[in-house]
Amino acid sequence: MKKTVHPKMTFQFYTDVKCFGPGVAELLLGVREHNSLRSAANSMNMAYSKAWTIIKTCENEFGFKLLNTSIGGKNGGGASLTSEAERLLNDYFAVCDELNMQANQLFSNKLSWLNIEK
Amino acid sequence: MKKTVHPKMTFQFYTDVKCFGPGVAELLLGVREHNSLRSAANSMNMAYSKAWTIIKTCENEFGFKLLNTSIGGKNGGGASLTSEAERLLNDYFAVCDELNMQANQLFSNKLSWLNIEK
Repeated sequence: MKKTVHPKMTFQFYTDVKCFGPGVAELLLGVREHNSLRSAANSMNMAYSKAWTIIKTCENEFGFKLLNTSIGGKNGGGASLTSEAERLLNDYFAVCDELNMQANQLFSNKLSWLNIEK
Repeated sequence: MKKTVHPKMTFQFYTDVKCFGPGVAELLLGVREHNSLRSAANSMNMAYSKAWTIIKTCENEFGFKLLNTSIGGKNGGGASLTSEAERLLNDYFAVCDELNMQANQLFSNKLSWLNIEK
């Protein structure tokens, strides 16, 4: 019984360094859900210091803030996505959806012979 | 001066494990060039044992051989690509070319705001 081969497309952004991809996108979705970078990092089993570095690198490369943060206050501080981060996520996932559709279609057209029983 | 953001698309194949992507493709191109898995691995600064494992994993998951190998003989042994490996490379790079074109186009359409001076 042959195993089925599946295509996987990954879409990332680089400047002179890697600055955005599925991992950062997942982290931002986590911030949106948990209103906290620390909780978002925890939910991905990622160290807070790593999550912080990833966000700072991305903000630095893009030249805009991804997170609105507040310290203390009635709700004990927290983080939310800036409008630019929301736009980035929205447009990134829209492009990923389109590219995944294309990748699956092209795999079917050109590479489905990998899944024919030999 | 803001840094320019570039998209990067990566196309990989999975069964229940990752089995093929740009690294294996590069290794196969190296075998084609050098007629040797060891020389191909060297040219990528990859340990021979790692190169061997990568090829064997891929062959096992796909269910066909990627390399014709000969031991000793007049030319001291060596490796060449099977016809399936040639077909795989050809079709893989054709799909990558198409997806890269799409990725660049979609990035221009949806995400070029990342490169507008703020």
